[in-house]
Amino acid sequence: MIAAIIICAVILNWVLRRLLMRAVTQIVRGVKRAQDVDTTSEMQSAPYVNARAVQRTRTLGTVGRVLITWIIAIIAMILILNQLGVNLGAVLTSAGIVAAGLAFGAQNLVKDILNGIFMVFEDQFGVGDYVTTGEISGTVEDVGIRVTQVRAIDGTLWFIRNGEILTLGNSSQGWGRALVDVTVDAHQDLGNVSELMVESAQALMRSEKYARKVTGEPEVLGLESVFGDRATLRLAVRTRPEAQWEVQRGIRAEIRRRFKDADIKLADELPKQQGGQK
Amino acid sequence: MIAAIIICAVILNWVLRRLLMRAVTQIVRGVKRAQDVDTTSEMQSAPYVNARAVQRTRTLGTVGRVLITWIIAIIAMILILNQLGVNLGAVLTSAGIVAAGLAFGAQNLVKDILNGIFMVFEDQFGVGDYVTTGEISGTVEDVGIRVTQVRAIDGTLWFIRNGEILTLGNSSQGWGRALVDVTVDAHQDLGNVSELMVESAQALMRSEKYARKVTGEPEVLGLESVFGDRATLRLAVRTRPEAQWEVQRGIRAEIRRRFKDADIKLADELPKQQGGQK
Amino acid sequence: MIAAIIICAVILNWVLRRLLMRAVTQIVRGVKRAQDVDTTSEMQSAPYVNARAVQRTRTLGTVGRVLITWIIAIIAMILILNQLGVNLGAVLTSAGIVAAGLAFGAQNLVKDILNGIFMVFEDQFGVGDYVTTGEISGTVEDVGIRVTQVRAIDGTLWFIRNGEILTLGNSSQGWGRALVDVTVDAHQDLGNVSELMVESAQALMRSEKYARKVTGEPEVLGLESVFGDRATLRLAVRTRPEAQWEVQRGIRAEIRRRFKDADIKLADELPKQQGGQK
Amino acid sequence: MIAAIIICAVILNWVLRRLLMRAVTQIVRGVKRAQDVDTTSEMQSAPYVNARAVQRTRTLGTVGRVLITWIIAIIAMILILNQLGVNLGAVLTSAGIVAAGLAFGAQNLVKDILNGIFMVFEDQFGVGDYVTTGEISGTVEDVGIRVTQVRAIDGTLWFIRNGEILTLGNSSQGWGRALVDVTVDAHQDLGNVSELMVESAQALMRSEKYARKVTGEPEVLGLESVFGDRATLRLAVRTRPEAQWEVQRGIRAEIRRRFKDADIKLADELPKQQGGQK
Amino acid sequence: MIAAIIICAVILNWVLRRLLMRAVTQIVRGVKRAQDVDTTSEMQSAPYVNARAVQRTRTLGTVGRVLITWIIAIIAMILILNQLGVNLGAVLTSAGIVAAGLAFGAQNLVKDILNGIFMVFEDQFGVGDYVTTGEISGTVEDVGIRVTQVRAIDGTLWFIRNGEILTLGNSSQGWGRALVDVTVDAHQDLGNVSELMVESAQALMRSEKYARKVTGEPEVLGLESVFGDRATLRLAVRTRPEAQWEVQRGIRAEIRRRFKDADIKLADELPKQQGGQK
Amino acid sequence: MIAAIIICAVILNWVLRRLLMRAVTQIVRGVKRAQDVDTTSEMQSAPYVNARAVQRTRTLGTVGRVLITWIIAIIAMILILNQLGVNLGAVLTSAGIVAAGLAFGAQNLVKDILNGIFMVFEDQFGVGDYVTTGEISGTVEDVGIRVTQVRAIDGTLWFIRNGEILTLGNSSQGWGRALVDVTVDAHQDLGNVSELMVESAQALMRSEKYARKVTGEPEVLGLESVFGDRATLRLAVRTRPEAQWEVQRGIRAEIRRRFKDADIKLADELPKQQGGQK
Amino acid sequence: MIAAIIICAVILNWVLRRLLMRAVTQIVRGVKRAQDVDTTSEMQSAPYVNARAVQRTRTLGTVGRVLITWIIAIIAMILILNQLGVNLGAVLTSAGIVAAGLAFGAQNLVKDILNGIFMVFEDQFGVGDYVTTGEISGTVEDVGIRVTQVRAIDGTLWFIRNGEILTLGNSSQGWGRALVDVTVDAHQDLGNVSELMVESAQALMRSEKYARKVTGEPEVLGLESVFGDRATLRLAVRTRPEAQWEVQRGIRAEIRRRFKDADIKLADELPKQQGGQK
Repeated sequence: MIAAIIICAVILNWVLRRLLMRAVTQIVRGVKRAQDVDTTSEMQSAPYVNARAVQRTRTLGTVGRVLITWIIAIIAMILILNQLGVNLGAVLTSAGIVAAGLAFGAQNLVKDILNGIFMVFEDQFGVGDYVTTGEISGTVEDVGIRVTQVRAIDGTLWFIRNGEILTLGNSSQGWGRALVDVTVDAHQDLGNVSELMVESAQALMRSEKYARKVTGEPEVLGLESVFGDRATLRLAVRTRPEAQWEVQRGIRAEIRRRFKDADIKLADELPKQQGGQK
Repeated sequence: MIAAIIICAVILNWVLRRLLMRAVTQIVRGVKRAQDVDTTSEMQSAPYVNARAVQRTRTLGTVGRVLITWIIAIIAMILILNQLGVNLGAVLTSAGIVAAGLAFGAQNLVKDILNGIFMVFEDQFGVGDYVTTGEISGTVEDVGIRVTQVRAIDGTLWFIRNGEILTLGNSSQGWGRALVDVTVDAHQDLGNVSELMVESAQALMRSEKYARKVTGEPEVLGLESVFGDRATLRLAVRTRPEAQWEVQRGIRAEIRRRFKDADIKLADELPKQQGGQK
Repeated sequence: MIAAIIICAVILNWVLRRLLMRAVTQIVRGVKRAQDVDTTSEMQSAPYVNARAVQRTRTLGTVGRVLITWIIAIIAMILILNQLGVNLGAVLTSAGIVAAGLAFGAQNLVKDILNGIFMVFEDQFGVGDYVTTGEISGTVEDVGIRVTQVRAIDGTLWFIRNGEILTLGNSSQGWGRALVDVTVDAHQDLGNVSELMVESAQALMRSEKYARKVTGEPEVLGLESVFGDRATLRLAVRTRPEAQWEVQRGIRAEIRRRFKDADIKLADELPKQQGGQK
Repeated sequence: MIAAIIICAVILNWVLRRLLMRAVTQIVRGVKRAQDVDTTSEMQSAPYVNARAVQRTRTLGTVGRVLITWIIAIIAMILILNQLGVNLGAVLTSAGIVAAGLAFGAQNLVKDILNGIFMVFEDQFGVGDYVTTGEISGTVEDVGIRVTQVRAIDGTLWFIRNGEILTLGNSSQGWGRALVDVTVDAHQDLGNVSELMVESAQALMRSEKYARKVTGEPEVLGLESVFGDRATLRLAVRTRPEAQWEVQRGIRAEIRRRFKDADIKLADELPKQQGGQK
Repeated sequence: MIAAIIICAVILNWVLRRLLMRAVTQIVRGVKRAQDVDTTSEMQSAPYVNARAVQRTRTLGTVGRVLITWIIAIIAMILILNQLGVNLGAVLTSAGIVAAGLAFGAQNLVKDILNGIFMVFEDQFGVGDYVTTGEISGTVEDVGIRVTQVRAIDGTLWFIRNGEILTLGNSSQGWGRALVDVTVDAHQDLGNVSELMVESAQALMRSEKYARKVTGEPEVLGLESVFGDRATLRLAVRTRPEAQWEVQRGIRAEIRRRFKDADIKLADELPKQQGGQK
Repeated sequence: MIAAIIICAVILNWVLRRLLMRAVTQIVRGVKRAQDVDTTSEMQSAPYVNARAVQRTRTLGTVGRVLITWIIAIIAMILILNQLGVNLGAVLTSAGIVAAGLAFGAQNLVKDILNGIFMVFEDQFGVGDYVTTGEISGTVEDVGIRVTQVRAIDGTLWFIRNGEILTLGNSSQGWGRALVDVTVDAHQDLGNVSELMVESAQALMRSEKYARKVTGEPEVLGLESVFGDRATLRLAVRTRPEAQWEVQRGIRAEIRRRFKDADIKLADELPKQQGGQK
Repeated sequence: MIAAIIICAVILNWVLRRLLMRAVTQIVRGVKRAQDVDTTSEMQSAPYVNARAVQRTRTLGTVGRVLITWIIAIIAMILILNQLGVNLGAVLTSAGIVAAGLAFGAQNLVKDILNGIFMVFEDQFGVGDYVTTGEISGTVEDVGIRVTQVRAIDGTLWFIRNGEILTLGNSSQGWGRALVDVTVDAHQDLGNVSELMVESAQALMRSEKYARKVTGEPEVLGLESVFGDRATLRLAVRTRPEAQWEVQRGIRAEIRRRFKDADIKLADELPKQQGGQK
């Protein structure tokens, strides 16, 4: 009888894992084929997007296989103990206490793994996304169950335990917004300055390099602050995700050029800390 | 007998879930119909408000369905074990220990989910609200049971675990207040300056662009601070929610224009950190 | 027998809840009637004070009803189990473990609610009070069992979990004190400066606008600090609660006016961080 | 038999509480009578000192009454259960687990209350003391078992949970020390400067206003720091508790006056943060 | 029977440990042989790479041996207790509680060791890597199960408990990127400045010393910020790992030389906060 | 039989406490007699040293008495329960759970007391020592089991819970070192400056006031930093414990005098934050 | 039988402790003899090194003796209880719960001691090493099981609980590196400056005082930063451990001298935040 239980468990485990792996393989292949078709696509992050789908499938596949094996093993063991006439209640109690003890001792491990699985399920980010968590910003290189690998801009590869990711900012989803604060000498006509700022951004949008990256109309939000001889204006424009930094630099350069031509004076930099505001 | 229990549980589960889903669907439809009628409404956040009601209903519906299934399953299991002659006390003890162990191991998960459910119940915020929590500010994109998604002004999508939301500021509820601090050269007549500030804000209220956004009378609170040659005056005016930043910028621009005409000198900016005061 | 227990419990529960609700209703009505009589009262916060009494009564009423139901239900359940011949000790043990497990898993929830109940009992603050906790200051809009809602000066509505309120400052109880630090050029006669400061505050007290708000005699505490050419004097005066900020602004304006007339020079502002001192 | 136990417990409880209350009342009366006799006493804090003794006695009395009731109730319950033939071991185990569970759930509450009782027992502070804990300084208004109320100098009433009081500074016990740092132009004769500083403090001690407040001889500790053209000297003098701030201000004013007469130049203030040193 | 169990366990333990050690030895030898062959290799970190493989194998070998012994010992003990007729359930319960107690008491130890094993398994870093964790940066000297030893640039040897490593940045994996921010006087032709910057970096790439270290094309990202008379441009170029700091210094020197020749003025440094760098 | 156990326990308790108290009294008397003999001693801290020995003995005596009573009471109770035929195992289990529960609830209390006992045993500090812990520095006034009382230099009495003392610096043990940083104009002959600094310190050592306080040879460590026109030299000299601050002030005054005579210019103070440095 | 067990345990304990102590004594003697031989050795830290070996042996000896006694006592007690017919399972369970409770209550104590034992085993530091942990730097005076004593440079003796030592930097192991940042006026020939810096360091290496302390060739790493008129160069050179600070001071003095002769201008100091350095 016990032998039968063991054999059934092994076969069931093998079959279920097999089915899961086949499903994973098919999804991965499907993604890859789509990738081959998509090669003419011009989205810069295409290989990343596919790598992401593939990796997400594989990660969940791994988790699934481990779960299948554990659940079958535990059920089989309970059945066998039952056959051997062991008191089920006592065993459950013991197991519960041991589980609690282990859960406590390895608290951080459990926290890391649970958070990792949920992050993959919720698709918070994928390989190639530019993310920020705590004081670390960079491109995701690997999404793991326990640790996530993020490559910072200076090439440092950061290993971040998933349980330490309390809040996570993903700059590669949907859209970005380029924000340019310009501080000018306040004695000038600010209406004129605003106009020039918008024109600069519009000129950028017409340029070949930036046309595809800017997706909205530029807008001067207004006077962020005004002091004796300094007035700060903020320009905002929607961009493709991850393009906001490049567009900001482009707009800054363009604004500077036009201000020079129009003889508008910029104010000096103050050595202060800046807080945020919408 | 056991079969009967199982069948009853399945049917009961199906019926209750069905009823719950129907209720959710009707509420959602009602909201949507209201939305169609309301399209002539001029409130900017109307689509958000509806999306919020729909989402809140759906989120609570999901929680409700999961709870129904779990409660029925646990009761059915206890009844079945009872039928099988298992000692109820021992099973309860085991279950309690296992629950405690799991609760400990997955402490953060439980914390996140419990906080999420309460936040939805208490309607702390909804899709489209502008919220601040910790160092993150932005518009809510999704209210989940475990994580909340907030889109910051630069387009970054923040995933915030609900358990990490200790305090949450919602700037989209009821009203906002625009606060403008103006630091002028103290040798001037401050009564005159105050008057000009109020006039600026009143002019703004009469303008087409801002008329709907300002909801109260502007008021100069008084002298916030005075030093050798610097005096800071604070102007406050009630606005519609989320309009305070735009109104602040508008008032700043208007004040600057009128001060220029009236030849009032603003003081220079000091590179210091500023604390708060009512 | 079991039916009798259940019926008794239901009736007892209904009666006790009924009694509690009647008591609450009477208290609330009494407060409201007092409010109608008091409408001629000139205290600015009168509606708030009443709203506070009403809310506090209601909040405690809600807690009371929930407690009544729970206690009756638990006692009834123990009696029924006793009738069914269940081992009381085992059930208590199980319940204890389950309670411990739940208490652990929902640790934050328990913490929030316990702190909330105690804060309401101890009457730490009520609707309309101006409070400070952590980095948030504002007027209380709602006192809840789990979260407290505070409206900041810029209109943001803060949801603060009660368990996160470690220390809470209430500026609306008893009295306030306006503190005005004046930094003058140290080469002047400081006795004369002190006298002028006190005169300014006294003039304010005689003015119609501030007469009701100032409740004590102004006093110059003395020289807070003295450096090469800067001397800081501190003026303090008791005010009604929540009036201290307005009085401070009024005194600042008055002092500035008189100093101008008397040709006393104020010192320039230094860009430094300021610590506190009694 | 059970009835006898209950009756004994009730009577014992009543008698013990009665005795405790009588003791408390007598102590309070004794303190009050002492207060009447002491009215001619000139110590400024006399009413506070008495209020403190009264409050401390009452607080401990309350704790004592609650403890008496609980201990008698638990012993009576054990005896009754024993009479009913309940297994004592099992009940103790259950109670232990329930207690542990509650202790965990209400961890903060237990922490607050335990710390509160110990603080009252150890007489760390009383009503009227000027205390500092964390970032809050002020006069104690109420010493409670769970929260302590401290009134800050600006009139804000702070509610501090006793468990959050990790370190507490009491400025009203024994003595205070006035510390005055004077930064002068370093090109002058520092011996002369020191002498003048001591003379200033001695003059203050002879003045009617400060004579009672200064309790020790003033002393110039020496050169705290010396730079290009700045030298800082520190003067220290013992005072009555809570009088140190007033004495500091008096000494500062006196020193400034004498330096002016003696034509000693003070150095300018530097915008820096200052650390501490003995 | 018991003797048989003990003998089997000892033999099994010995055999398995033996096999494991042989495997480890072979891997180590293989690595060393590869090292001898590789001596002509020009990668600077070759000895480190090999030391790393050897150490990783040895560390995992040690962990494996300890695990083998513990698992065999526990199984043998259970079998023996079974033979002695001891109640298996009770023993498991006791063991579970003891394990939980130990896990709690030695929580930090368990945390350190678990994190250490996972870090070695995941190959997060090895001997010779330049890593950053918390406020410590340096070259890894030893990868241990409980502590990691990192040698900082000033020669200090840091012992870091593995459980304290929440996030870890490894600068020796894959590639690095040299980032050079140049702040010039904004009145000059920035296009010209950009060109000179790229030329400087390209010149460096052609030099013998840096040719092998730079692996990508230099690129001027654009205007990082622009103020009155200051414009900051950022140059980025991919390098070999750990070479980014040397390349940065080289580029800075080269840019300075060329700017001097071309008479381009750099802007002054502002007294701001600076982050860290190797 | 039970009565016999109780009587034995009471007598044993009385005898052991008596013996302990006698031992404590004798030690205290011995210390006091030594004190009488030592009155001619010139060590400033003599009364403190004795008070310390007395207090340490008394504190440990109190702990000892409490421990004796508890241990005897627990053993007596176990023996009595045994006599009553109570199951020892069950009682031990219950007691263990209750102890765990209490230990958890009163976690901070246990932590404070355990740390307090160890600090007294290890003789980390005594009454009269000048200690630093966290942000509090001052002279120890009382060493308690739960709280330590420290008197700060401004007379504030700090109550520090022993469990909060993570690191503790004692400046009254063994020796102190006076460190004087002198920043001079860098255009002068630094060798000459160094020599003058050492001479100043040596002159101080020969003066009556400081002769007993300086215990080592003064030494100029060298150039701490050098910039355009500023060079910082550090002088170090060993002193008696707690005399380092006075010696520092004396050396600063002496150096200033000699530099004035020798016409050496000191550099101006920079408004910067200073970190630590050996 | 029980008496036999007790006698065996006592004898075994005595024998094992004896053996351990003899081993410790022999190791200590061996070290001391080596010390006598080594007195001609010129390593400055020789007495420290020996003291360290002696202390480490003694510390581990103490731990060993305590462990021997505890293990023998526990085994003996189990055997005795077994003889008395006590249920082994129940006793183990009780003991486990009590252990868990104690472990929880005395969590910090366990943490301190475990970390202390591991630090001694891993030989992280010894008496005489210069270590940094948290904000405390100094020379180790005593390595204890619960606390470590570190003497800071100003003579303060710090008691650090071992569990609080999360990361520990040891500056006395292997080697040190002197780092000297020199900021010169950028208009000068930097190649020339670099050369002079290296020459200064080489001159130092040839001097008698520093010859033994410098162990590597000096190297100018390159341009750390360059701004308008300021260029910072960094010189690095390997030294013996703990000699880096002295070498740095020597190099600074030498560089200043040579720059003066060569008429190279240093740049002024900027009032910025500085990180730490020994």
